[in-house]
Amino acid sequence: MKIVVDAMGGDNAPRATVKGSIQAASEYDIDLILVGKENEIKKELERNGYKGNNIEIINAEEVIANEDKPVKAIRRKKDSSMVVGLKMVKDKKADAFISAGNTGALLTGGLFVVGRLKGIERAALAPVYPTKRGISVLLDAGANADCKPKFLEQFAIMGSIYAEKVLNIKNPKVGLVNIGTEEGKGNELTRDTYEILSQSNINFYGNLEARDIPEGLVDVLVCDGFVGNIILKLTEGLALTIFSMLKEEFTKTPFTKLGALMLKPGLKNFKNKLDYTEYGGAPLLGVNGAVIKAHGSSDAKAIKNAIRQAKIFVENKVLEKIKENIEE
Amino acid sequence: MKIVVDAMGGDNAPRATVKGSIQAASEYDIDLILVGKENEIKKELERNGYKGNNIEIINAEEVIANEDKPVKAIRRKKDSSMVVGLKMVKDKKADAFISAGNTGALLTGGLFVVGRLKGIERAALAPVYPTKRGISVLLDAGANADCKPKFLEQFAIMGSIYAEKVLNIKNPKVGLVNIGTEEGKGNELTRDTYEILSQSNINFYGNLEARDIPEGLVDVLVCDGFVGNIILKLTEGLALTIFSMLKEEFTKTPFTKLGALMLKPGLKNFKNKLDYTEYGGAPLLGVNGAVIKAHGSSDAKAIKNAIRQAKIFVENKVLEKIKENIEE
Repeated sequence: MKIVVDAMGGDNAPRATVKGSIQAASEYDIDLILVGKENEIKKELERNGYKGNNIEIINAEEVIANEDKPVKAIRRKKDSSMVVGLKMVKDKKADAFISAGNTGALLTGGLFVVGRLKGIERAALAPVYPTKRGISVLLDAGANADCKPKFLEQFAIMGSIYAEKVLNIKNPKVGLVNIGTEEGKGNELTRDTYEILSQSNINFYGNLEARDIPEGLVDVLVCDGFVGNIILKLTEGLALTIFSMLKEEFTKTPFTKLGALMLKPGLKNFKNKLDYTEYGGAPLLGVNGAVIKAHGSSDAKAIKNAIRQAKIFVENKVLEKIKENIEE
Repeated sequence: MKIVVDAMGGDNAPRATVKGSIQAASEYDIDLILVGKENEIKKELERNGYKGNNIEIINAEEVIANEDKPVKAIRRKKDSSMVVGLKMVKDKKADAFISAGNTGALLTGGLFVVGRLKGIERAALAPVYPTKRGISVLLDAGANADCKPKFLEQFAIMGSIYAEKVLNIKNPKVGLVNIGTEEGKGNELTRDTYEILSQSNINFYGNLEARDIPEGLVDVLVCDGFVGNIILKLTEGLALTIFSMLKEEFTKTPFTKLGALMLKPGLKNFKNKLDYTEYGGAPLLGVNGAVIKAHGSSDAKAIKNAIRQAKIFVENKVLEKIKENIEE
């Protein structure tokens, strides 16, 4: 199996991308391709004392920056690590592509370079959402701001397959994110989607209110990309704000500092439960290839986990399963 | 000034509603009308040893329950505390109405019984959202699941007036909740609304991503009722989940329990910052009267604060200001 890593993507690239790739290359039975500026990649490989033979370098001189406009960047920067990597997946020269770079550009590239699966209306970004009971998959997390019921139906199908095949959740429960639990609640989109989902083959839980999302009542959270992005970003923002407010309280006096010190392992344990780096990245479901978006601030561990995730994605034939289910 | 309180509305009614009203009646220069089952209200007044002369009782034999379907309840339960109270506002027999009862019914009653202000397209529910820096007003929080740009423009205007006149925020900054900060980001609704807001007279901050909401970068958060409800409910759910997860960590061993004990004042201080009871309730902005929704689980303090809020709302002529601004 060949997995391509965008060596230049992300806040900590190429340091974290190369280091994470080295770790993955030594732990898993895979071949890795690092695409990006050859000199920089070589330097990092040397710095980490890499002596293996399952990492190949493909040179790409351009880099798509976070500030670049997605469509323009994908069209013009033909020799960027992202476009070159995506093209390898498109041409079946590699099985999967991972990037921690510009999210918009990766979504655009996934569609323009790799292309959608036949029968799929829209591709969705599907990150993992940590909950009290474990994890849920959330889709769409921002690829499609305006959606139709048919899109959401396909998100439900793709999310179910991904949850089962990659996250190892049996017969995953799908919840429709809504502003009320009863049938008939919500906006036009969710009301129509509810009808479709309740007649489908998926394991439909029904409507799920936002206050129950962190409880982890369902395995797959379905919503349009606008709402999904709001959920994801608000959760990040709230967690950060709550931690910073707590920290302020905990460091007020030597006495509270001592108390906080005693709770440090517990706080750390709690933070770990919310640690996105554990779960790899977010696949772009619905494109004709395994394309995975790692978090922009990914460290080496997050990259390694994204590579492991890509491996499971390919091994368990997620694309083939999606194709089968969509054709039905 | 006459303020009507729905004595039967909310999880703790009539105990909390009557007690909160007694507190408000003794602190503020107002006349209160408690509407609901006279016997029960009298019993509560006696139990609290009320001896004042600024609380009147208006009997209403029916109660709208939380399980009641809003439209049906408002149409059929003509002698319910909610309908009777709203009618007093409609008929100018009272200046404001407060209820902690069925939210959907109050929204419906606000429209059907009291009616919209002339020129207003949709009324919006506008709760306060506690942030790191203080508070923001969020609207619409769930009255209108599907919105047009024109609705959001009016929400921005009404929210600005409310923030200035009731929450005492000078020249309030209005942020459009969106999934990107730049112009052109978002869905059809937010893109079109951005254009309108940037040409309006309000103090427009621009787009605000959900991760920045808890930071309190703006004073007024504008969005459709679906997104607003998701934001509000997710925040509640996350706060509850994070506290329960932290509690679990903090009570694991005698040692961690001691640490938690040392941090108790800090934790309490932090919780207070997020305490909705401090801020009264959420006005239904855009109806032709002061109608305020208190939280379903309101205690006496929350009811008292909602009454204070209604008083400020009326004193500062929020309705008149909205009328003026909409006509412009």
